[in-house]
Amino acid sequence: MPTCQAPPRGKFISFEGIDGSGKTTQVKRLVAALQRAAVPVIHTHEPGGTPLGRYLRQVLLDTRETAPTTRAEILLFAADRAEHVETVIRPALTAGQIVVCDRFADSTRAYQGSGRRMSAEVIEQSLQLATQGLEPDLTFLLDLPVEMAVQRLRQRGAPAHRFEAAGLEFYHRVRAGFLALAEQYPTRIRVIDANRSPDEVHTAIWQVVAARLTPPLL
Amino acid sequence: MPTCQAPPRGKFISFEGIDGSGKTTQVKRLVAALQRAAVPVIHTHEPGGTPLGRYLRQVLLDTRETAPTTRAEILLFAADRAEHVETVIRPALTAGQIVVCDRFADSTRAYQGSGRRMSAEVIEQSLQLATQGLEPDLTFLLDLPVEMAVQRLRQRGAPAHRFEAAGLEFYHRVRAGFLALAEQYPTRIRVIDANRSPDEVHTAIWQVVAARLTPPLL
Repeated sequence: MPTCQAPPRGKFISFEGIDGSGKTTQVKRLVAALQRAAVPVIHTHEPGGTPLGRYLRQVLLDTRETAPTTRAEILLFAADRAEHVETVIRPALTAGQIVVCDRFADSTRAYQGSGRRMSAEVIEQSLQLATQGLEPDLTFLLDLPVEMAVQRLRQRGAPAHRFEAAGLEFYHRVRAGFLALAEQYPTRIRVIDANRSPDEVHTAIWQVVAARLTPPLL
Repeated sequence: MPTCQAPPRGKFISFEGIDGSGKTTQVKRLVAALQRAAVPVIHTHEPGGTPLGRYLRQVLLDTRETAPTTRAEILLFAADRAEHVETVIRPALTAGQIVVCDRFADSTRAYQGSGRRMSAEVIEQSLQLATQGLEPDLTFLLDLPVEMAVQRLRQRGAPAHRFEAAGLEFYHRVRAGFLALAEQYPTRIRVIDANRSPDEVHTAIWQVVAARLTPPLL
């Protein structure tokens, strides 16, 4: 008679950092490295990791057309995240996969909390409603000076209005907010110096992940 | 020297009831009657009373394409409501206007709470985040049997999928939820028998409003 064993709960890795910190590149590289190591992995992102989320992403990222109030913005991200957690992240974790996610709750804490100065109470209540308490097992914070991030984005041809509208001061507050979170959650959040070549950054990330890759994973 | 006087705070009237209860007709008639009485009034509705809201309305009302989870749905309504409260309802109240709104927080309590069985705790937390405690001064609950509401909607040519998808049982729970709210908030919520002609329903509503129309309004 076959024995039926519950799959091991997977692990949840998030990537955080200001725009231009190289998250998207590094997420792709980590996912590829895990796949080469034959580790079951899914690659997802916020906002937009679900059909609903892709729809909301238009509202959330196009701040020129329909710029919502900060409170509405927080609740839109919460709706996107609730859908993402319930239909993508939790099912994958239950199936024993590693979930690698480009942005998660810390982005709301840093952008809407530190950046737009919304109270921590409102932020945490909205996160609790969205995630039902789910936090990543491991978070990589890709950190670099705001001026360097802006330079990278300009080289990439990102629309300048994103920085003009919010102001560099906003991005300084967001970066400081991320670093304060890393101090608050030193076990979960690993700060990675992103002011290096993509190869060097990937190596630093892979060292952390590989060290935890022997069973039980992470 | 001119004295500067704060305008009197306006009053907030919401209309609630299941689909087909005649809310929209009665909101228009009340607004028209108030305008004839030279009372400063604005007419608005949820979801969709703001530019962001009109965009979200597509997501919220088209349940076939992107059917969100109940939790995501609640947070989308909360985002719409936060925007509506902050940019439309509170400014109008501050300016001393009467705000007549087609659906507000009680719809979330009845549809997502009683209808979709989401816990009252999640519902009330999301409402608090969205409204920052704003409740209507007066709510008209247009009540009628579910079967009559469905008959009216069919006569109007409403798409049958709305009832087939949710099932009549759902609408019975929503109606019961509204009636339970009226028991819970007997001062704020006035139950109006909507199983009458539009003229009769309007007369019943106007009697309640007119009785409170001498200054201070309501």
